[in-house]
Amino acid sequence: MKSYTKELWFNISSRMDFINISHDVERCVQEAGIQEGLCLVNAMHITASVFINDDESGLHRDYKRWLEKLAPHAPLSQYDHNLTGEDNGDAHHKRQIMGREVVVAITKGRLHFGAWEQIFYGEFDGRRKKRVLVKIIGE
Amino acid sequence: MKSYTKELWFNISSRMDFINISHDVERCVQEAGIQEGLCLVNAMHITASVFINDDESGLHRDYKRWLEKLAPHAPLSQYDHNLTGEDNGDAHHKRQIMGREVVVAITKGRLHFGAWEQIFYGEFDGRRKKRVLVKIIGE
Amino acid sequence: MKSYTKELWFNISSRMDFINISHDVERCVQEAGIQEGLCLVNAMHITASVFINDDESGLHRDYKRWLEKLAPHAPLSQYDHNLTGEDNGDAHHKRQIMGREVVVAITKGRLHFGAWEQIFYGEFDGRRKKRVLVKIIGE
Repeated sequence: MKSYTKELWFNISSRMDFINISHDVERCVQEAGIQEGLCLVNAMHITASVFINDDESGLHRDYKRWLEKLAPHAPLSQYDHNLTGEDNGDAHHKRQIMGREVVVAITKGRLHFGAWEQIFYGEFDGRRKKRVLVKIIGE
Repeated sequence: MKSYTKELWFNISSRMDFINISHDVERCVQEAGIQEGLCLVNAMHITASVFINDDESGLHRDYKRWLEKLAPHAPLSQYDHNLTGEDNGDAHHKRQIMGREVVVAITKGRLHFGAWEQIFYGEFDGRRKKRVLVKIIGE
Repeated sequence: MKSYTKELWFNISSRMDFINISHDVERCVQEAGIQEGLCLVNAMHITASVFINDDESGLHRDYKRWLEKLAPHAPLSQYDHNLTGEDNGDAHHKRQIMGREVVVAITKGRLHFGAWEQIFYGEFDGRRKKRVLVKIIGE
């Protein structure tokens, strides 16, 4: 069995945004030299997500509007978590909707994807450096 | 390390429905001949889910009503994604609630499940052929 | 390839609560003696979750309030599932928001975590003994 580990860094300039990290993860798969296995991609922060969906700007606007409705940022006082001095109570909730991680199959040395699957880093409390972990095991 | 890969095809006759695919996945585990490992089951489409819950028709009606409330199909104009000509903006949202994938342990050659765990394919934009991926690694 | 399997038992005294099981999982990783691999932690019940987030009591109060708003326990009659004689229709919904499982990388013999990542067992229909599965594969 072979294994591969890489931390990717991102610094999103807004509070909430989604960026396509599919090419970063594909590069990891190439570097790993693993033909058959599983690839875990997870946010290392608890106010961010990694998820798989469509790279379509209208959908991303829809997601932001929807998440803001399900877990609004303001007023800050609606979250007990913000009593700690944080202002990111909403981000911990948005991340639960969008998920922490994805596990992707590797087949014949490539991410085994359907036609429209793309991997995104989802940021809900940005404007600072944060990490995503890529861990691959297989042969 | 051994690995196993299979794509399962489904064609759901309604827009939204859930079907129990536990037996299909168990058959894959048998074919794989793997005694100890991990089994990934994921939707290969971004308007569908794979999830684990109860095979109880009342619960499935509840889920459909709830998802329709959290992310209604109509009016279509509420989703910017539908400006692309699609009518499945809601399906991309419902899928995020129900999830893309499950990872199940394989122990002694079988899916290691609690008493009521069943695997479902969740369709949110059906009436066409779509795929689920089963990837197993282990020994 | 090595593998490790353990079922952890919990008995939560209230209907809904979250408990930090990070130390239990770390102990499993030690026992497994695996240096590089993947660790699956999943609820074996369909009215419970395993998720990763912050160990902060205000946030946990926020989550409970939010989940109760998204999928209220009462009135029981709002869930067809409760027509079976159950009173846990809400719990099956709350579990979908918080998720069934997490997959965590193991690097150099330890859970590969960001600074604030902690693993929780999330109970939505407690007051009885329930199980969490830990499955580790690697080398």
